[in-house]
Amino acid sequence: MIGKSGIAVRKVRRANADAVARLAKFGVATIHEAMGRVGLMAPYMRPIYPGARVCGTAVTVLGHPGDNWMLHVAAELLARGDVVVMGFSSETTDGMFGDLLATSFRARGGAGLIIDAGVRDTAELAQMKFPVWSKVVNAKGTIKATVGSVNVPVICAGALVHPGDVVVADDDGVVVVLAAKAAEVADAAQAREEKENATRARLAGGELGLDIYGMRDKLKAAGLRYYEDPEDAKY
Amino acid sequence: MIGKSGIAVRKVRRANADAVARLAKFGVATIHEAMGRVGLMAPYMRPIYPGARVCGTAVTVLGHPGDNWMLHVAAELLARGDVVVMGFSSETTDGMFGDLLATSFRARGGAGLIIDAGVRDTAELAQMKFPVWSKVVNAKGTIKATVGSVNVPVICAGALVHPGDVVVADDDGVVVVLAAKAAEVADAAQAREEKENATRARLAGGELGLDIYGMRDKLKAAGLRYYEDPEDAKY
Amino acid sequence: MIGKSGIAVRKVRRANADAVARLAKFGVATIHEAMGRVGLMAPYMRPIYPGARVCGTAVTVLGHPGDNWMLHVAAELLARGDVVVMGFSSETTDGMFGDLLATSFRARGGAGLIIDAGVRDTAELAQMKFPVWSKVVNAKGTIKATVGSVNVPVICAGALVHPGDVVVADDDGVVVVLAAKAAEVADAAQAREEKENATRARLAGGELGLDIYGMRDKLKAAGLRYYEDPEDAKY
Amino acid sequence: MIGKSGIAVRKVRRANADAVARLAKFGVATIHEAMGRVGLMAPYMRPIYPGARVCGTAVTVLGHPGDNWMLHVAAELLARGDVVVMGFSSETTDGMFGDLLATSFRARGGAGLIIDAGVRDTAELAQMKFPVWSKVVNAKGTIKATVGSVNVPVICAGALVHPGDVVVADDDGVVVVLAAKAAEVADAAQAREEKENATRARLAGGELGLDIYGMRDKLKAAGLRYYEDPEDAKY
Amino acid sequence: MIGKSGIAVRKVRRANADAVARLAKFGVATIHEAMGRVGLMAPYMRPIYPGARVCGTAVTVLGHPGDNWMLHVAAELLARGDVVVMGFSSETTDGMFGDLLATSFRARGGAGLIIDAGVRDTAELAQMKFPVWSKVVNAKGTIKATVGSVNVPVICAGALVHPGDVVVADDDGVVVVLAAKAAEVADAAQAREEKENATRARLAGGELGLDIYGMRDKLKAAGLRYYEDPEDAKY
Amino acid sequence: MIGKSGIAVRKVRRANADAVARLAKFGVATIHEAMGRVGLMAPYMRPIYPGARVCGTAVTVLGHPGDNWMLHVAAELLARGDVVVMGFSSETTDGMFGDLLATSFRARGGAGLIIDAGVRDTAELAQMKFPVWSKVVNAKGTIKATVGSVNVPVICAGALVHPGDVVVADDDGVVVVLAAKAAEVADAAQAREEKENATRARLAGGELGLDIYGMRDKLKAAGLRYYEDPEDAKY
Repeated sequence: MIGKSGIAVRKVRRANADAVARLAKFGVATIHEAMGRVGLMAPYMRPIYPGARVCGTAVTVLGHPGDNWMLHVAAELLARGDVVVMGFSSETTDGMFGDLLATSFRARGGAGLIIDAGVRDTAELAQMKFPVWSKVVNAKGTIKATVGSVNVPVICAGALVHPGDVVVADDDGVVVVLAAKAAEVADAAQAREEKENATRARLAGGELGLDIYGMRDKLKAAGLRYYEDPEDAKY
Repeated sequence: MIGKSGIAVRKVRRANADAVARLAKFGVATIHEAMGRVGLMAPYMRPIYPGARVCGTAVTVLGHPGDNWMLHVAAELLARGDVVVMGFSSETTDGMFGDLLATSFRARGGAGLIIDAGVRDTAELAQMKFPVWSKVVNAKGTIKATVGSVNVPVICAGALVHPGDVVVADDDGVVVVLAAKAAEVADAAQAREEKENATRARLAGGELGLDIYGMRDKLKAAGLRYYEDPEDAKY
Repeated sequence: MIGKSGIAVRKVRRANADAVARLAKFGVATIHEAMGRVGLMAPYMRPIYPGARVCGTAVTVLGHPGDNWMLHVAAELLARGDVVVMGFSSETTDGMFGDLLATSFRARGGAGLIIDAGVRDTAELAQMKFPVWSKVVNAKGTIKATVGSVNVPVICAGALVHPGDVVVADDDGVVVVLAAKAAEVADAAQAREEKENATRARLAGGELGLDIYGMRDKLKAAGLRYYEDPEDAKY
Repeated sequence: MIGKSGIAVRKVRRANADAVARLAKFGVATIHEAMGRVGLMAPYMRPIYPGARVCGTAVTVLGHPGDNWMLHVAAELLARGDVVVMGFSSETTDGMFGDLLATSFRARGGAGLIIDAGVRDTAELAQMKFPVWSKVVNAKGTIKATVGSVNVPVICAGALVHPGDVVVADDDGVVVVLAAKAAEVADAAQAREEKENATRARLAGGELGLDIYGMRDKLKAAGLRYYEDPEDAKY
Repeated sequence: MIGKSGIAVRKVRRANADAVARLAKFGVATIHEAMGRVGLMAPYMRPIYPGARVCGTAVTVLGHPGDNWMLHVAAELLARGDVVVMGFSSETTDGMFGDLLATSFRARGGAGLIIDAGVRDTAELAQMKFPVWSKVVNAKGTIKATVGSVNVPVICAGALVHPGDVVVADDDGVVVVLAAKAAEVADAAQAREEKENATRARLAGGELGLDIYGMRDKLKAAGLRYYEDPEDAKY
Repeated sequence: MIGKSGIAVRKVRRANADAVARLAKFGVATIHEAMGRVGLMAPYMRPIYPGARVCGTAVTVLGHPGDNWMLHVAAELLARGDVVVMGFSSETTDGMFGDLLATSFRARGGAGLIIDAGVRDTAELAQMKFPVWSKVVNAKGTIKATVGSVNVPVICAGALVHPGDVVVADDDGVVVVLAAKAAEVADAAQAREEKENATRARLAGGELGLDIYGMRDKLKAAGLRYYEDPEDAKY
């Protein structure tokens, strides 16, 4: 059950490492398109410093408002390259994570954090180059009183994340790739990027998308009408 | 009619090029003051990188939620120095614009984008130094199914923009100057900046605005009373 | 009475200068924790440039929507190291402060501004390294028509601030320390930082918070149960 | 120029009274559809009591944050059946309007108010059955210090409104009809309503929109595929 | 995959009808507690009229911004007592649903709608007593251009919903019960309600929760200290 | 210190009962004006049913996110006519209060609740006619793990409230009157209401505020200019 508390699972069926490495080369927008426009978190999730970037396998955490206890439980369950993804039982903006936890995560192999809440010590995190995406920056600390879960499916910023799924995040946001689809999505992203590179060169040369994508007839059929002068168009 | 779809107008009555060049020297706050505090877009419009700055003539686009088709129509209608301004028939946060369209816009003379929606590929756009102001950053892509309009008056982030109006944007936001008023506003901005420079020197020397602007009597008349000590003031 | 207009008080009972100097060494999150998690402003208060940082004594200002008149009154009442804190009688997002007022504040000893409204000229303010925390960036200017108060208690972004209180602000937000508690809070922050440094070293070496903080038994008592495999956990 | 202050215009070119009377019979959603989906204000504009409803000609007001002076100027310029529409030079949530102004408006022929700010005395207004749509309910009062304008074009909640345009508002929101288009839009709304009535009867009888609108082939062409059982669909 | 388009599944494994009937007797808050505080949608989901209430089995719909095409597909797949739950590929506030679709849903057995977007014709829907929970009320209509899916798992307002799950909604919000847990949750809700009824009687008689729940010692242990007079408490 | 936890004070210096009774006759807007426009809570505080109304003396509560423990402590400290006012150490939207606590409050003399968080069981609360103003309606329950304080000064929705202050709330929002000022404010509200009644009669008779308040000269001096026809006004 999504949101059940009191569970910590040690074993994670992580996505294929080679597929993860291949996905690491692509941007969030490219991967999201390659998946058929699914898997994106809500755009309020922002990196704490420009240029932050991560691609890794999810260790998931379910927490409760104002309580970051389960992040300590998660630290022990990390493998090299994991990204911690934390969702909550209800809306919270407290600062759940700072430079001490980042030090611990890094020492245990953690590569980043995606959290539907607040974080703090952002100057130190930026200096450490520990990438974090959060809803807000907030110095407000938390208690450790209520257990949640680790490595159960969670909803984070509107996206469903299973333990072991691939999480890719950059300046454009955060996207989640099902573990079982990682290789397939990497292929599709590669194909998309190659196609875009070819198109980019043509566009840079002054060709129009109208012609490259053959849009002129479709626009006409859809009702677009050109006027030479604003006087002619009755708007 | 504001918001009518299906119209693309080729001819734009652009503001005088010399006036545009003169306006390019001033900040958004100065121009907005010089116009009598009108023409500003809502403050949720933010540049995608610090220091972004543009001043150009508007090519306007009306779009629909989740659909960026008309940006391709706009690309063909750009002249050197134009800034694309896109408003929508209703609220939308999808990522309408990325580095491919930026490449096309730049190749056709486009100088920047102002869009009441989301954008993506922001790291690439920042690297290209292609200036964009948007409501949000969002990797979510769009479809091309519904025609809107190009070069009709649009409302973007609460401001009315006609094709050919001057659009100035910097870290403080986005302001629109009517094409017919461009020279007059440039004059007023110049006068304001000269006056501010003189004031700045006096303030830097320790003089007070209270004295420079002659505010002391007005404050007294308006009811301000000074107390030496908090004990004396009954608040 | 919180919010009474028409009062300007010259004398401020500032926090002990030595305590202020000691507090300047700590981050907002550390001070907030050292105080027992009180005194924090709402997280919508953000610095206008990354790395902004200030620690000083409050000169407080009560203003009204769309009116920045009292900032000029405040300028005269500044002593070296003061931070101006401005709250409002109701919600406002107009740009109350720009580079001219910053020039004046700096010339009179002002070290920064905390304002529950908008600011403008942010590029110039960043270049001047004049630190400002605000709700929004907005080029919209203001009038000077209604008197508020200076150096009365104000509520700013949900925090109560008295004249002379210590205000500390950095990338994580803004925290207020009662003048009478400044030395005590500096001691507590010092103790906390030393303890955190020791913990950080252990975490960096791979030790877990679970062990350092002795959490394992408490988690078990609180109901956390470990499973080797997701199949075993009925979620 | 949209947003210019200091202007009060006595003469309003009101929409044809017969067309206004005909538009009064239709809901906001119907009129908005009949116009081709333009002219709608942002959905944050809500009636202060359920069932509020108005259709009249606009007397427009431009105001400034925290200042309701121009509503008194507007009162004198009302004709029977006018609806006051007030936009602002920047964002404001203060309570601009209460039961005294409502009494005055009603005495002078005013039929309602649309305001991109706050209102108060809402219990009294509901009791008077004076219909108001606003952004917020707020007891906070305003000053009378800065002149705006009356009967100039204004932008209110994202919609452009000219003096004399038809404004229709109900539980679904607020829509604006250009004065010159009022009759044409009333015709289109009538036609739409008749068509909808016929469709409603068929839907009530159990027929499906899929069949009535002939959607089955289009859905198939667009890629929809039916599966008998979730096991067959690989989602 | 959550969010995959182009799928319509006819067969729904609905929760046990008897369990659904039993759940219908409890409020959302009670059921949410009985489940261990999981399954709740975000609190921005509000009923369109006070007193709206529904309990039924979910027919799920995935849609795209500004497009309501799939609601027509859903209409055909409804069984008596179903509640349509619609989530979206990205944020949208357009008015997706009105009285025509409500007429169709009702004719086909539909008992209500939960939609993470806007609705319109709210006066008519209230008159029909067709219960709807939505993010916003908005007269803005939609297009029918892009296929989504019907009867696949969807995320709606932060909650995961599978076809056939039980959806209960009232003035307090919307909660989702896994189909397989429906009977167990109904039992737990029944037990909770009985316990609450007993407690309510004692509280109505003036007994304190402090005593009924045995909180006094726990509060003392947690650090609460009583003072007779504010003078004694150093806050 | 605002926000200090672990304190419960039994003795409250309540405002004079006669003054409270007199204040009960006035609306929130009137009292707020009578105080000189101070003491108002933020407009996001809304009654849970239309027509809710309360006037009483404050028993204040400081709580933490997701935790309603201190409301039980408050129940014991209520006297007849008290209104509980609860602020929080940081932002929270959980449902802190429902019909059981309302039953307890009522049995102990409590007259209403003002809470900067969520509430639930709103249908039952409305039926009981127990008036509540909150930030949100939310079925999400809370834990009882962290002590806060009762009867210390709190900030609630941007307003400072001391134990014993008068709290008045209606459809327009919530206003706080210092205990020591209650009689004085009641006098001022009475005077204001009498004056408004006289004005209302004149406005109802068709006189204009422009004349009653003598605004015509001031408007002219402030720069307002009348034009007979829009053609004459160059906007």
